[in-house]
Amino acid sequence: MSLLNSVQELEKKYRLTANQRALLISDGSTTTLLEAFTGQTVLVKGRSQSIVRADARLASELQVEPKSEVSKRIVHLVSGGSSEILAYAISYTPIERLSPALLHDVQRTDIPIGKILKMHKIESRREIKEIGFIRDTHFKEIFGSECGMYRTYLIIHQNAPLMKIEEYFPLRSDEHYESSVGHRSRDE
Amino acid sequence: MSLLNSVQELEKKYRLTANQRALLISDGSTTTLLEAFTGQTVLVKGRSQSIVRADARLASELQVEPKSEVSKRIVHLVSGGSSEILAYAISYTPIERLSPALLHDVQRTDIPIGKILKMHKIESRREIKEIGFIRDTHFKEIFGSECGMYRTYLIIHQNAPLMKIEEYFPLRSDEHYESSVGHRSRDE
Repeated sequence: MSLLNSVQELEKKYRLTANQRALLISDGSTTTLLEAFTGQTVLVKGRSQSIVRADARLASELQVEPKSEVSKRIVHLVSGGSSEILAYAISYTPIERLSPALLHDVQRTDIPIGKILKMHKIESRREIKEIGFIRDTHFKEIFGSECGMYRTYLIIHQNAPLMKIEEYFPLRSDEHYESSVGHRSRDE
Repeated sequence: MSLLNSVQELEKKYRLTANQRALLISDGSTTTLLEAFTGQTVLVKGRSQSIVRADARLASELQVEPKSEVSKRIVHLVSGGSSEILAYAISYTPIERLSPALLHDVQRTDIPIGKILKMHKIESRREIKEIGFIRDTHFKEIFGSECGMYRTYLIIHQNAPLMKIEEYFPLRSDEHYESSVGHRSRDE
């Protein structure tokens, strides 16, 4: 099924705007898209940065050995104009695939991933793995709404995943969404 | 100057929509963006396909010897729903950088470039070189308006340009645009 078909399936539950559809299926930089949509600079606000050990599932997704070291970075993408939080993103990067310079920039947490790739002239391709709706009480304090949409994708470089990224975007909490999407926890 | 700054400069002359800004500055697949914006499949209609010799300027842009063989492909991106022409695109690809399989798919002219890159799992990065407004009598029959916006970019693969692409998108022809953008021929 094409990504457009997946979006059309989602839209049977909840009608998306053109911009929301683009955020789910574009293979370009998310920050650049958000800058185009808002007409404002988008800032990256680091929430946390840590080195974790890949569990079996993450190791399989990243094509590394289980328990390999992975840089986990959580950021908010924030409008430079309104200070509104436009997206919440988690990236997982196997340490063994990063040059020291690249690791340094990933760990800084104030540079968008797209800009890091551009600065280091990294050639890559993006494989979108999943798109969908999600409801999470945790989003209430971030987006002002428990209702969101998400996508997960891999950034492939030299035939191996350089990063796995999860992105979450707000949706208006309304009756239609509530009844059609229902509640899920993020750990499901 | 960042791309967002360039867009903000353009918007002093003519106010763009969020979608138009994204078409100018996104580094993702144009076809995918148009599919997201229209909610419909976007089809590629080949207009012409030929092998040309690179003149000095094109050779310099593509980093090949002058008079090298280049595949020139002109296509319309057409809405699968309304049959409206959403974009007009010209791509230039040095033959010497294409595998036979890749050359075959480029010359078919009915597959979007983004899809060709995906099918062949090509890792690349996009360098946007120029964005702007343009007025061209030739657009009248394509878009129903002489007024358009354009961008040119390189797709870089293995540290060399794999393609140079020019894309043109329609703008509403209105008094504001007419007076602020003025007339230019496409060969300027």
